[in-house]
Amino acid sequence: MVITKTATPPAAARGEDRHRLGVLTGVAALGLDALASCAYGPEAIVLALAAAGVAGIQLTVPVTLLIVALLAVLVASYRQVIAAYPDGGGAYAVARRNLGPTAGLVAAASLVVDYVLNVAVSVAAGVAALTSAFPVLLPWTLELCLAALLVVVGVNLRGVLAGGRLFAVPAAIFVGALAVLIVVGVVRGHPLHPLPAPSPMGITASVGVLLVLAAFANGCAALTGIEAIANATPSFRVDRARRARQAELGLGITLGTLLIGLAVLVELFGARPTDGRTLLSLLAEGSIGTGPGYLVVQFATVVLLLVAANTSYGGLPVLLAKLANDGALPHVFGLRADRQVYRAGLVVLSVLAGGLLVFSGGQVNVLVPLFAVGVFIGFALCQLGMLRHWLRHREGRWQTRLGINGLGCVASTVAALVITVEKFTEGAWLVVLVVPLLVALFITVQRAYRRIGGELGVDQQPACPRSATSVVVVPVVAITRLAEKTLSAALSMGDRVVAAHVVFGTEPDELAATREFQRRWEGWQPNVPLVLLDSTHRLLGPPIARYVRSLEEPHVVVLIGEVRPERWWERVLFNRRGSVVARYVGRHTDAVVCRLRFPLRRATVSRTP
Amino acid sequence: MVITKTATPPAAARGEDRHRLGVLTGVAALGLDALASCAYGPEAIVLALAAAGVAGIQLTVPVTLLIVALLAVLVASYRQVIAAYPDGGGAYAVARRNLGPTAGLVAAASLVVDYVLNVAVSVAAGVAALTSAFPVLLPWTLELCLAALLVVVGVNLRGVLAGGRLFAVPAAIFVGALAVLIVVGVVRGHPLHPLPAPSPMGITASVGVLLVLAAFANGCAALTGIEAIANATPSFRVDRARRARQAELGLGITLGTLLIGLAVLVELFGARPTDGRTLLSLLAEGSIGTGPGYLVVQFATVVLLLVAANTSYGGLPVLLAKLANDGALPHVFGLRADRQVYRAGLVVLSVLAGGLLVFSGGQVNVLVPLFAVGVFIGFALCQLGMLRHWLRHREGRWQTRLGINGLGCVASTVAALVITVEKFTEGAWLVVLVVPLLVALFITVQRAYRRIGGELGVDQQPACPRSATSVVVVPVVAITRLAEKTLSAALSMGDRVVAAHVVFGTEPDELAATREFQRRWEGWQPNVPLVLLDSTHRLLGPPIARYVRSLEEPHVVVLIGEVRPERWWERVLFNRRGSVVARYVGRHTDAVVCRLRFPLRRATVSRTP
Repeated sequence: MVITKTATPPAAARGEDRHRLGVLTGVAALGLDALASCAYGPEAIVLALAAAGVAGIQLTVPVTLLIVALLAVLVASYRQVIAAYPDGGGAYAVARRNLGPTAGLVAAASLVVDYVLNVAVSVAAGVAALTSAFPVLLPWTLELCLAALLVVVGVNLRGVLAGGRLFAVPAAIFVGALAVLIVVGVVRGHPLHPLPAPSPMGITASVGVLLVLAAFANGCAALTGIEAIANATPSFRVDRARRARQAELGLGITLGTLLIGLAVLVELFGARPTDGRTLLSLLAEGSIGTGPGYLVVQFATVVLLLVAANTSYGGLPVLLAKLANDGALPHVFGLRADRQVYRAGLVVLSVLAGGLLVFSGGQVNVLVPLFAVGVFIGFALCQLGMLRHWLRHREGRWQTRLGINGLGCVASTVAALVITVEKFTEGAWLVVLVVPLLVALFITVQRAYRRIGGELGVDQQPACPRSATSVVVVPVVAITRLAEKTLSAALSMGDRVVAAHVVFGTEPDELAATREFQRRWEGWQPNVPLVLLDSTHRLLGPPIARYVRSLEEPHVVVLIGEVRPERWWERVLFNRRGSVVARYVGRHTDAVVCRLRFPLRRATVSRTP
Repeated sequence: MVITKTATPPAAARGEDRHRLGVLTGVAALGLDALASCAYGPEAIVLALAAAGVAGIQLTVPVTLLIVALLAVLVASYRQVIAAYPDGGGAYAVARRNLGPTAGLVAAASLVVDYVLNVAVSVAAGVAALTSAFPVLLPWTLELCLAALLVVVGVNLRGVLAGGRLFAVPAAIFVGALAVLIVVGVVRGHPLHPLPAPSPMGITASVGVLLVLAAFANGCAALTGIEAIANATPSFRVDRARRARQAELGLGITLGTLLIGLAVLVELFGARPTDGRTLLSLLAEGSIGTGPGYLVVQFATVVLLLVAANTSYGGLPVLLAKLANDGALPHVFGLRADRQVYRAGLVVLSVLAGGLLVFSGGQVNVLVPLFAVGVFIGFALCQLGMLRHWLRHREGRWQTRLGINGLGCVASTVAALVITVEKFTEGAWLVVLVVPLLVALFITVQRAYRRIGGELGVDQQPACPRSATSVVVVPVVAITRLAEKTLSAALSMGDRVVAAHVVFGTEPDELAATREFQRRWEGWQPNVPLVLLDSTHRLLGPPIARYVRSLEEPHVVVLIGEVRPERWWERVLFNRRGSVVARYVGRHTDAVVCRLRFPLRRATVSRTP
């Protein structure tokens, strides 16, 4: 395979690089959901084949070989993608650049759906592995799922790096445990003791092409996640593209080997679906019994599946940030918080995945049919884009590359069609509905940003700013040091200052208060004109806004003085009128709204009687 | 009884007066909870006496006469209060002026407790009358209570007046229905047909002083609410004091007559407590049968009790406003909304009453023991204050008045002691606990306001405001029309203007963006110096706050330009950075924080390509 020279500029080395991924940590942090699909992929195949009884189960190895072949094609294709697009973005970037913006958005929408489903499926499958080992926990499935999700979110708020290093250990243990289990089982050639009785299940299908297609559609769930490395290439250390390609290859070889090994075990052991037990737990029991080794396998599976959800946290926020930079999502998704975390994307991913878990009650079988559809739409668009890429850039051994990506395109398109048709009534319809809706959202946001950008003149040079006469309106409630400080600030800010006192109510006490205010103002003589504004309905904002609109100066400033209490609970002692006026005037006039906070300090109290 | 000439200034007549109460509407709006206590007061007496069996029931009339005598004393006393304090406030105002601020706050705290309990008890008793007539509704007691509370709140948000006029009709029907029922029953002298069997109940007490005390303590609940008119005198039309005194007298006569009449009926019919039925519904059945007349009585009771809760809405918000004006509660309680409604007090009352209903499950018997304690603490303090008042102001027939209030003081003190001792374990302890806590709250708030008032110099004349040099800092994110408009405003506001651009992140794309910004700024030449501020942890607020603190000018203004989108959903397209910076800088510096909103208008879009 030819590796294109990357054009990535070396990443800045000021300590940021140590937050990044190497080949092994990359496989661990970004390839986990692909590896973890060993826990539900083979089970999905067996579940479909079991509809034809024991004869169906004997097709496990052939179907798995079909899926591994598809895996090989896709890995080869994605290595091309990494080489050609080292800035990441995967299907989105490739489809957008080569097939046009709308195809890019379709790819992005399908990826968004899949990243979210990956979190939900991984968490649910992890909890299923746990309840296989400890059936007493079965009634708490959903609660366990949500608790696990919270743990994953907490870890990811600390940054993608923390995930990578932390998760390398369980990934190694899981792969090692599966390798031991496969080798022991294949060498012995039969289960250690008879497996638990399979669930009673009528034979509803016969061995044939349709059965193979159904099993293939189900098994494609095992390939979800292999695109994550290509999408997150910028998370790697220098030089990114080389490390990412190595990680992609390592992931493909490991995953393919494990899938074939597990399929062979299924046929050797004659394993069939059993209520309340995962297929992997049955294979472990058949291979190494239910001793401490069994618990190690189950525990490694639980931990790995829970951290597999992490792949989405490495991938989706980066994708959403790209969409935000292209104006297809609110800019907030493009803001990095501390430790390189795109916080908005992280939160949206967590909320949606939590919603799916609640919706499905934490059941893997409800979620898996939704899963593969979107993934393969993305695969197909990405490979189609790569075809266009090589046809445009006919350089190096472009014919070979065109062939690789052409094969990938055909294979993933066929897979996408098979899955959609096979799984339509089982939930794929939801994905078929959500993807266009997401695309419509992206396009709406893009149009709005374009309109606003035109209005703001982002691409033009604006006129030079120039000074103009200004007037400062200061709402005054009482004659205090706050009023003095506010009016002083106003005199420093504007060419003209007006104090505005709102008079409301015609109760005797209210009228008396107004007279008293006027009397004190006259006694004070602050050299600022005072206007009295009548209020209808006892509201403060409208009379001030009305007065502001009546002014003729080009720049009107409303300066609101507020007390800032020293202790938090003292806030309730102030009636938020400042906030109310600021908000009303800000919404209903073009004035600049200013707020001056007068700090109350305990130290100064001793000076006052 | 001698009526003191009032010193109230005539209320302003600009249409506000028609929102106020006359004598009859005053009895209806403010005396309702006293009248409505006919529905649970006699029942409370009978419940206590039934512990001594049929012999106990025969004490109903003597105990009721004792309570009516107390009523007469209290009405006479409160007429003195109205005359002496026509500005309202009742126990609070009287105790505060004559016994000192702390006694006033104790009276206020007890009144707060009682107003809240009145709402809860009235609503619960109203629902009990309803479920007496329609036992099928019994399981929905709490839900009905909360729904009824919502209706009362809704009516009161429209103003006290709307309550008064609207509620005069059911009050008249209730009083009329009770009068008919009593006259018919007394004339016939025996029940129309045998009453339903009383609940089985062991005889646990013998006829004697303790039994009378227990019945008296229970029956005092019938007198709650007679102070409401004195507390809310300012709600009456001119001249307030005379109308309020007439209303107080009318209320006393009506209530006393009804209580005695009902007690006579109880003895004539030998009525005893029956599960799921109110005493009043038993008397109605004995007097006029279970035909349409019975339903009229029950329906009138339900409606009256529900509107009885309204008395608290007339009284508590006024009391809280008085406390707020005296600095013992946050000022927000003193703010009148449209239609004279003190909205904060109304909301607090509703939330607390709703909480009590939920806590008690809507059961009258759980709430009644808590009720009378606080009321009689307030009565006693008020009358004690009046004693001091007459001893200080020895004018007119002060000896007579001293005598009236002295009698009132002794009677209500004795009643308060009896109720507290008798009902301590049944819930009175809660009131004994809450009243001091409320007093502590009032005192804490008063101290805080006093400290803040000293700091603000509310009683002194502040220095004259004076101008000083100022600098305006403008955070600029991008070079757009928004930046132009913001810098123009800044140039009009300050002696010196500085544009501040926060640089964060060392990712290649971020460094490139900063270079591009500098290049465009140099091309723009806006004649404003630009400072680049480095951000740690990718936050916007801290670098700007740090820069602001480093400036030497006495007045620093931070002017933040923000886009105001035309459509509400477009808000999500802007990342709220303006708000974040405004809040951070406002909290961490003494700078004046200004926000300029740049409106996006659809009309102008057509001009841009």
